[in-house]
Amino acid sequence: MSDNARHITRDMLPEPTLRRLPWYLAYVKMLDSKHEEYVSSTQIAKRLNVDASQIAKDLSFLNIKGKTRIGYEVHPLTKALTEFLGFKHRHNAFLVGAGSLGSALMRDLGLMQYGLNIVAAFDINPAIVGKNVGDIPIYDFAEFSTRQRSTGVSIAIVAVPFENAQDVADTLVESNIKAIWNFTPYRIKVPRNIVLQNTSIYSDLALMYNRMEASANIKNITK
Amino acid sequence: MSDNARHITRDMLPEPTLRRLPWYLAYVKMLDSKHEEYVSSTQIAKRLNVDASQIAKDLSFLNIKGKTRIGYEVHPLTKALTEFLGFKHRHNAFLVGAGSLGSALMRDLGLMQYGLNIVAAFDINPAIVGKNVGDIPIYDFAEFSTRQRSTGVSIAIVAVPFENAQDVADTLVESNIKAIWNFTPYRIKVPRNIVLQNTSIYSDLALMYNRMEASANIKNITK
Repeated sequence: MSDNARHITRDMLPEPTLRRLPWYLAYVKMLDSKHEEYVSSTQIAKRLNVDASQIAKDLSFLNIKGKTRIGYEVHPLTKALTEFLGFKHRHNAFLVGAGSLGSALMRDLGLMQYGLNIVAAFDINPAIVGKNVGDIPIYDFAEFSTRQRSTGVSIAIVAVPFENAQDVADTLVESNIKAIWNFTPYRIKVPRNIVLQNTSIYSDLALMYNRMEASANIKNITK
Repeated sequence: MSDNARHITRDMLPEPTLRRLPWYLAYVKMLDSKHEEYVSSTQIAKRLNVDASQIAKDLSFLNIKGKTRIGYEVHPLTKALTEFLGFKHRHNAFLVGAGSLGSALMRDLGLMQYGLNIVAAFDINPAIVGKNVGDIPIYDFAEFSTRQRSTGVSIAIVAVPFENAQDVADTLVESNIKAIWNFTPYRIKVPRNIVLQNTSIYSDLALMYNRMEASANIKNITK
């Protein structure tokens, strides 16, 4: 398969598939750590509550095919998924907002394991500018553009108070950032050519609260 | 409106609505901090890229109606959304797995702001059991059931290595936990009466990587 064809396949990957691939990875990694050699799509299907034919289809995007009656080879599948998901490459990133959530992200070594390397943080608070979290330095946000130009870092993580999220995003876009990972609940607006990924921990929390209450109500009604 | 009717409404809230409410909250909170008095659904719609009629529909679940030509009152809307989303109540939670991600969550004071109060953490690593992160104690996971019974805490956050996620979840379910917030990429299985919320930071990361690559390819093709 030519490099070009590989890219076109990757471009067209549907979001639901992309969301399921990390589940498969976690599962086969676990099997790999137990030195299992093969896994069938039926086995993955049963474990993850995903249709076996869907799994086969998802994995075919990576040009991975199982063997009849044996299934997939666990170790090569783990490697292929890790590689395909971009977790093996090192992606340098800047973090903006080194407050409570921001410094938590700086401390989460899990991100590094998934290929994200936070090289520097930025803030406007004079009490923390010039300090470090772990070995990540915190610079003045006024230096952002200069440091972006000199390093070429293209990913920025936004963990500022939501009131400032749009202003910060505007500066990032002007500074040649290609992708923004937004941890604030604020819906920031960016031009079409910028990749925007929202991760809304707090909206997941709201969802959980709501379901807890709903489930408590059902119990009260059926009592 | 009777308390019962309010509950039934809340039970039936669709997930997409629940996911949008925190966006509205972030926006109106920002307006509130600028002492704006009114906001129209058209204004919210323009800002958040959500249909104005959808916004009116979403807010009607909370029994909130805007005034013709004036719109919604910002301050009461902020209060109603905060209350409805459960961010005002204090929800006590246990955290399992006080490693890098777990202790990052313990340090994120943002969770407290959204009503989640981590009262204790559990781990199996003797090097950290008995220590504190901030003022949150870390206990031996073997004590989980006993401490759950004596405190009645019903929410557990799972931030263990994914290989252990299912075993941990099984113990939590046996221990009378009502809701599990799963931060591992592992799809854990729980009985139907347990609320399960997955937050998959790393799958968001994979999505961002993929889109960055796709967008780089488009640029290469159109060059």
